[in-house]
Amino acid sequence: MELVGTTRQRLITATNESFRHRGYHGTSVQAVVEAAEATVGSLYHFFPGGKSELAEATVQETGAAYGDLFSVFLAETASAEEAVRAFFHGAADALVESDFIDLCPIGTVAREVASEDERLRTAAADVFGQWVDKLVAPLVAVGIDAETARDRATAVICLLEGAFVLARTSRDAGVLRTTGSFAAAMIAEAVREASARRV
Amino acid sequence: MELVGTTRQRLITATNESFRHRGYHGTSVQAVVEAAEATVGSLYHFFPGGKSELAEATVQETGAAYGDLFSVFLAETASAEEAVRAFFHGAADALVESDFIDLCPIGTVAREVASEDERLRTAAADVFGQWVDKLVAPLVAVGIDAETARDRATAVICLLEGAFVLARTSRDAGVLRTTGSFAAAMIAEAVREASARRV
Repeated sequence: MELVGTTRQRLITATNESFRHRGYHGTSVQAVVEAAEATVGSLYHFFPGGKSELAEATVQETGAAYGDLFSVFLAETASAEEAVRAFFHGAADALVESDFIDLCPIGTVAREVASEDERLRTAAADVFGQWVDKLVAPLVAVGIDAETARDRATAVICLLEGAFVLARTSRDAGVLRTTGSFAAAMIAEAVREASARRV
Repeated sequence: MELVGTTRQRLITATNESFRHRGYHGTSVQAVVEAAEATVGSLYHFFPGGKSELAEATVQETGAAYGDLFSVFLAETASAEEAVRAFFHGAADALVESDFIDLCPIGTVAREVASEDERLRTAAADVFGQWVDKLVAPLVAVGIDAETARDRATAVICLLEGAFVLARTSRDAGVLRTTGSFAAAMIAEAVREASARRV
């Protein structure tokens, strides 16, 4: 793990790394503090609510970073379809390079705690909502109606989350490439239908 | 939780219930033993490997039960398309009825432990593989080629797993209904393409 940034940033990075390997309940405050080369005192200074508050910030900041990454793919490709395909393929490469650690600890943490930690559940739900919004915007921009855009974008995020689970579990990144093609096709079809209606 | 069956069955049921609320690392052997009205001695009698072996059996048996449930849907509907749609809608109802506890603890447990417990990772991967196989069979039976059938079936399971995550996190079962329609459409399209090739 790269140890850079302020103490607060190092705590977030160490928490995220631990979540990627063993989830929320498998992460101890002590191990995070050691990995971040910080102190328990500094952790409670930045996160007075302790582990739950640290996890909330980690989910929010990791979620925003993924959202920004998708914006980069959108800016560098010709269409939402291409951006989606490239994103899934990039995720497949990242999964192999990282030896199949969890690409989306947000999904894991959300599933572990959704029944018991309302603040953390809400933080994760907000992140998924932001990702859907990120994909809705370019779809609406090319003339897809808002409801269709939202349904397709939600399905694409579900495909991505599901593919993270199956690919990590089976140690087969091909799942991400195959589902990426379906996700891109799902977007392309909505674009075609929207332009056919305009003709 | 219903307390029925042999001690071994009660241990599996209690483990599954705990996984559904708080995942693998959030589950303690002591809490499982108490919920199952069993003893630590009986747990190690049936599962000499302790928590990991108990979890492996729970993943295998829960996974097989879900697979059997899908077979019931297949038997009671006219086509794989209808079975898939009905399965997602049934899952949406079950999620609401259970107050949004985790419908697929297998996915959660797999993500928590895949980097550290090879036996448990393999058990989860086998379950996902069995589910894909369950859906591949009726697709091949209506003339879809094996590779297409496998890719579509995998995408459907990814949609289901991803929808479990988003629906539980957002407390919105509608995600399962919407993605169920996409999953059914994905199957219907493959069926249409296969029959068009035969004409």
